Amino acid sequence: MKGLFITFEGPEGAGKSTQARLLAEWLRAKGREVVLTREPGGTRLGQAIRGLLLHQDPMCAEAEYLLYSADRAEHMQRVIQPALGLGHIVLCDRWLDSSLAYQGYGRGLDLGWLRAVAQGATQGIRPHKTFLFDLPPEVGLERFEGRDRLEREPLEFHRRVRQGYLELAQAEPERFVLLDATQPLEALHTQLRGYLESLLLEANP
Amino acid sequence: MKGLFITFEGPEGAGKSTQARLLAEWLRAKGREVVLTREPGGTRLGQAIRGLLLHQDPMCAEAEYLLYSADRAEHMQRVIQPALGLGHIVLCDRWLDSSLAYQGYGRGLDLGWLRAVAQGATQGIRPHKTFLFDLPPEVGLERFEGRDRLEREPLEFHRRVRQGYLELAQAEPERFVLLDATQPLEALHTQLRGYLESLLLEANP
Repeated sequence: MKGLFITFEGPEGAGKSTQARLLAEWLRAKGREVVLTREPGGTRLGQAIRGLLLHQDPMCAEAEYLLYSADRAEHMQRVIQPALGLGHIVLCDRWLDSSLAYQGYGRGLDLGWLRAVAQGATQGIRPHKTFLFDLPPEVGLERFEGRDRLEREPLEFHRRVRQGYLELAQAEPERFVLLDATQPLEALHTQLRGYLESLLLEANP
Repeated sequence: MKGLFITFEGPEGAGKSTQARLLAEWLRAKGREVVLTREPGGTRLGQAIRGLLLHQDPMCAEAEYLLYSADRAEHMQRVIQPALGLGHIVLCDRWLDSSLAYQGYGRGLDLGWLRAVAQGATQGIRPHKTFLFDLPPEVGLERFEGRDRLEREPLEFHRRVRQGYLELAQAEPERFVLLDATQPLEALHTQLRGYLESLLLEANP
C-alpha cells in the first residue's frame, strides 16, 4: 500500500467537501495523482445506494447502516484499494467515522456491532489521516439548509454526533486532526496544506 | 412472540415460492392469519434493494451480502416482528440461510463475519421451522432458466451452495426439514401440510 488515504469528517455545512476539492486542486497542481471521492456514492452502485439513503422514507437504523456499509465495501474494493496500490493520494469525503458518529452515537446503534460489520466492509484498510471539521451544530445547520433526511433530525441528534466525533478523535490522536471549522475558508485551506506538506514529507522523505 | 415464523430455502427452480403460496392459501382457508413474504423485497426499501441486486453489474461479494442484510433488517423490523407479535403465521421465501449458503459457501465469504452482521439485522429472531427444498443443481438450473445474476454462476458454485445448505440443516436438525424437491408439486404440498398440522398443534395444543 504505497498511496496516502485521507478522509474528511464532520457535519454538513462544515466545509469539508469544499476543502477536499481545494486540496485536490492544489495537489494536482503540484503534479500529484489524486483521487477525490466520497461516501456514499463513490461508485456506480454507490450512486444508487446514495439515492436510496437520501430519498427513501425513514428506514430502520440497522438498514441505514448496512446500506452505508454496502456502499463502503464496493468503494473500498473498486476505488480506494486500487488507487492506493498505484501510489495515489485518495481524498475521501466521509468514511466509516461518519457511520460511527451518526448511526452509532447519533442513532444509538451498538458500536461493537458497527465495527464488526465494518471489518468486512473496509477489508481492514484505515486512513493515514482524518481531518475532523468541528462545528457547533447550530452553526452547521444554519449554513446547510435541510437538504436530506439527516438534516431534519433534532438538534439533540446533531449534538450526540458531534460528541461522538470528538470521542473518536480522542481515541485515535495519531490519525485524527481536529480542525476549528468556524475559521474562514482560506485559513482552513492554508492549515490543511501545511498538514499535507508534512504527510508527503513523511511518505517520501 | 406468539406467531409462527417459517422460512423456505433452496435453489431457484425447486418450487419453494409455489409451495409457500399454496400453503398460505390452505392456511387462510383454515381461518389463519398468514403473512406471505420474501427476501429480498418484502418492504418498499427491499423492493428497491432487490432491483439493485438483480440488475446492477457485478458487485463485490461483501457489498452484495450487506445489501441483502439491509433488506433483511428492514423486513424483520417492519414486517416479520410485528406480524409475529400479532400471532400471525409468517411464511418467508428465503432468509438468512440463503445468504449463508450463497454468499458464504458459494462465494467464500467468512461465515463468522456473515453471522456477526446478521446479529444486528435479524435482532436475534430465528425461524421456528425452515423447509429446505433440496435439488441437484442440474435439475434446478434446467427448470429455471437464467433470469438473474445468480443463475449465471457456474455449476460448481451451485454445488457449493447445495453443500452449504445441507451443512446448515445438519447443524440445526430441530429447525430444518429437508425435503426432496424432485417430488411432484402435489406430493410436496401434502407433505408440507402434514408438517404444518403438527406445528400448529404444538403451538396451540
